[in-house]
Amino acid sequence: MKIAVLGTGEVGRRLGSKLVALGHEVTLGSRSADHAGATAWAAEHRAAHGTFAAAAHGAEVVVNATGGLVSLAALESAGADNLAGKVLIDVSNPLDFSQGTPPKVLTPDGGSLAEQIQRAFPGARVVKTLNTMNNAIMVDPARVPGEHCVFVCGDDQAAKEVVIGLLRAFGWPEERILDLGDLSGARGAELLLPLWLRLLGTLGTADFNFAVLKA
Amino acid sequence: MKIAVLGTGEVGRRLGSKLVALGHEVTLGSRSADHAGATAWAAEHRAAHGTFAAAAHGAEVVVNATGGLVSLAALESAGADNLAGKVLIDVSNPLDFSQGTPPKVLTPDGGSLAEQIQRAFPGARVVKTLNTMNNAIMVDPARVPGEHCVFVCGDDQAAKEVVIGLLRAFGWPEERILDLGDLSGARGAELLLPLWLRLLGTLGTADFNFAVLKA
Repeated sequence: MKIAVLGTGEVGRRLGSKLVALGHEVTLGSRSADHAGATAWAAEHRAAHGTFAAAAHGAEVVVNATGGLVSLAALESAGADNLAGKVLIDVSNPLDFSQGTPPKVLTPDGGSLAEQIQRAFPGARVVKTLNTMNNAIMVDPARVPGEHCVFVCGDDQAAKEVVIGLLRAFGWPEERILDLGDLSGARGAELLLPLWLRLLGTLGTADFNFAVLKA
Repeated sequence: MKIAVLGTGEVGRRLGSKLVALGHEVTLGSRSADHAGATAWAAEHRAAHGTFAAAAHGAEVVVNATGGLVSLAALESAGADNLAGKVLIDVSNPLDFSQGTPPKVLTPDGGSLAEQIQRAFPGARVVKTLNTMNNAIMVDPARVPGEHCVFVCGDDQAAKEVVIGLLRAFGWPEERILDLGDLSGARGAELLLPLWLRLLGTLGTADFNFAVLKA
């Protein structure tokens, strides 16, 4: 598939690299067409790079890997027309570090960033996933042993199926892809971050993930 | 030990019954001295019941198992003098159902209810634990197989050790009692509730718990 990954940070590059390795045509999107990091990444991975708008324009699937506090602006820059009808995978976290550490999760009106994105871009088919773990685990779940899981939710069932297909290609067994239902499930997934950040400190490693174990 | 369990709901009665079974002297505390449910429970379990203040007065350890939105009022009723110097185990969740379901987690100023309680009763030695699972699992972790865990945090290390001792008596293996550090760790634990509630719906059972798996 033609996939735009918006965001040139560690998460965007990690997801982009895995998608290239899986045979997808990836364009890394950034604010400017001549972003040095994106240019270098694209050259190394035989992929493309461009502005948010250029990346989204040619894509069938768009991944929002920008920082949660700038996601709405980045997607605005990508353009509603370039997102309409497309699967929009939101892996971001609305963490506000402006008051220091630990950051606050910004959840206006008790909602989630994923729902804000869906409201702002009603033509996009938003699916929230992968925001609850370190990026190395996102694309290589086997690096953590055991029955840990990835959450997925969204209002568009067909879009969710596309995302589940990508998660399976990343190495996630079907029984560990937990469907949280419609996009309001993103509230719980985003509010998991304070606990994740705390465990990052107490465990001294980002190499962990959550599991949900049943009786 | 002499333990006061404040709150006559399912959580309070479940914890009280387990503590009685473990040989502790338990007093179930409620708003009024003649609470029908507390009276019946105490008769059945050969335990005591009384007002919040009476229960807390004679106790070495106090468990806050009241609803999160009324916890501060219940503890005020118990009395700061009756809480001073005592281990105060907070298992409550500040869930606001006033706007319907799903409830919001009330986290004033990005903090937690546990920290609010500690500020309101500086003489108490507040430890947050057990709020992230169904009450049946709290006192019988073996009912869910696998490496699921219980979180514990607090500012007073000796108080935390008392609580960890009780958790071990409940059946929690030491390696699955995850110490989140000081009481601000309660923020992450309380914000886990929206995901817990969502999973309650999607899994169709409360008989599940979270695990933290490491590489």
